[in-house]
Amino acid sequence: MKVGKSSIQFDNVYLKDSSIVVGPKEKNGPLGQYFDFSFDDLYCYEKSFEKAEIRMYNTAFDINLNKAKVLDKEIDLVISGDLNNQIVISSYSMRNYDTPYLGIFSACATSVEGLILGSIFINYLNYNYIVVNASSHNAVCEKQFRFPNEYGGQKPQYITSTVTAATSILLCNEENITEDIKIKFKKATIGKVIDYTISDPQDLGRSMAPACFHTLKEHLNDFKIDVNYYDLILSGDLSKFGKELFVNICDANNIDIKNIYNDCGLMIYDLDKQDVHSGGSGSGCLPAVCFSYIINEMKNGKIKRVLLLATGALHNPSILNQKESIPGICHAISIERE
Amino acid sequence: MKVGKSSIQFDNVYLKDSSIVVGPKEKNGPLGQYFDFSFDDLYCYEKSFEKAEIRMYNTAFDINLNKAKVLDKEIDLVISGDLNNQIVISSYSMRNYDTPYLGIFSACATSVEGLILGSIFINYLNYNYIVVNASSHNAVCEKQFRFPNEYGGQKPQYITSTVTAATSILLCNEENITEDIKIKFKKATIGKVIDYTISDPQDLGRSMAPACFHTLKEHLNDFKIDVNYYDLILSGDLSKFGKELFVNICDANNIDIKNIYNDCGLMIYDLDKQDVHSGGSGSGCLPAVCFSYIINEMKNGKIKRVLLLATGALHNPSILNQKESIPGICHAISIERE
Repeated sequence: MKVGKSSIQFDNVYLKDSSIVVGPKEKNGPLGQYFDFSFDDLYCYEKSFEKAEIRMYNTAFDINLNKAKVLDKEIDLVISGDLNNQIVISSYSMRNYDTPYLGIFSACATSVEGLILGSIFINYLNYNYIVVNASSHNAVCEKQFRFPNEYGGQKPQYITSTVTAATSILLCNEENITEDIKIKFKKATIGKVIDYTISDPQDLGRSMAPACFHTLKEHLNDFKIDVNYYDLILSGDLSKFGKELFVNICDANNIDIKNIYNDCGLMIYDLDKQDVHSGGSGSGCLPAVCFSYIINEMKNGKIKRVLLLATGALHNPSILNQKESIPGICHAISIERE
Repeated sequence: MKVGKSSIQFDNVYLKDSSIVVGPKEKNGPLGQYFDFSFDDLYCYEKSFEKAEIRMYNTAFDINLNKAKVLDKEIDLVISGDLNNQIVISSYSMRNYDTPYLGIFSACATSVEGLILGSIFINYLNYNYIVVNASSHNAVCEKQFRFPNEYGGQKPQYITSTVTAATSILLCNEENITEDIKIKFKKATIGKVIDYTISDPQDLGRSMAPACFHTLKEHLNDFKIDVNYYDLILSGDLSKFGKELFVNICDANNIDIKNIYNDCGLMIYDLDKQDVHSGGSGSGCLPAVCFSYIINEMKNGKIKRVLLLATGALHNPSILNQKESIPGICHAISIERE
């Protein structure tokens, strides 16, 4: 049911399985061993980067269904989005599957928007299986939002590097969960658009930090909990600079998260050794980190309750060329081990 | 609850109010008198077409709230999308309101995807007020998907003309409905992606017709009803040519809809007098026709049950340049007078 102003509680939504397919840079990063599959270059045997991303998307979805031993026609609904104009990666990939499909867009917060909607269908509408897919691809994003790599433009230190990852998450209800260790989706908060009036598209991390704080505060208020309810709070993706701003805003509001907080964009790469400037970003980043390494840590009993704060920068190049700033949003969902 | 393979039933979702803001061509069309507000040119006092569309969007939302005497902070959630890259019209407009927001994309089926999701929140999660917004703008779409008008490119007869319309629909539960004539959202069906392998972006109507038929068939099967359950079946937007193909596919499957079927893109313009080739299209078209003229007809008692079949073409120019075809989707929802 609705909780407070903008939150929702779930009691019957479980993580059945997930699959993460990445590119070479992510495979070579500190979490490389946790991913299901990786391609050796950004073309993934295809002739264009968009087709490469579609191939990654299909591969992630197929591996997920395979691991869970579920057929596409048993999936009640796929909810999905990506960073491409008109989310074409999701829509074109979904041609191959016999499954109802809803397209969503919330930039890098897309995966959590999908998890919130998917949890609603399972918890309140008796759906059995829902898949939430999201993807991003470094070369597709570079040419769409910035300049192709071949231009060799110089980048500022605060820019992030788009993560190449296709992620597929399978949710189910209690009847269909057979795993011994049960991981549930429990508490969600839907964010609102907040514009911090930054207009530099290379500084997306800081542009989203105020939206991230707003959703965290709403989440704590709505559920009447303290940040220490969680063992880990994960944002995605604020960058090194956005993380610092977010922690400062929390401090100024007497919310001390320093010991339990990290950002997925800083975890997927080694910032000292890999050429990614201030971290990773992209709608594939947060789910790639969370539904591989973090779920593994939860299954090992190291952490029990995680809050995902997925942040999105809701601009496009054509509106920024009209002297606009960059609005941000953040959607939250908790993952809790029973 | 879930009904059949891909449908959902609602019992407690009402149309509270709606607002339709259009451009000059729509105002001069056969339904002009039914719209709430119109701008005299496509710039709407702004300096760019995107900002014009944002202004139309805000105007539609404001009029809707005003008519219903509800404040933005009383709205539990806005669900919204548009045809712009990264749905920037919705996201930038939503900066101005203190309301949680979910971005969606399903091309010209966006409004019905929003109505389905909004109905779920009201029916199953005890939300009071949900607003579903959608918009499209002729000049923004022409330059983004085709060529700017100034190029003067020749158009084939089967091309449609993007409708300039911002639409805002307010849903509520039984507690908040005070109107004597109660109009409910009752039966929804979520579509799947179907690619009819047409690759001409000027022939979108025909590319979506098979998806439209698929969703109609699923809808009738899931609810075990006949097409004659409805007084009117409205697609949006198939064009003159897509409509013909859709009727032919229905005929071939022994579903006779000819006497109860029309397409919103053919209703919003006078095809003989206005220069729109094979009809109107765009994510604003179906809601502009339905939540003005059609609702009026329902309130007058002329029709009682309407099925909306919103169709979307899920392409973008960059993927079509890679020799791809155009996948279609169709989502359905019924509007019924008690």
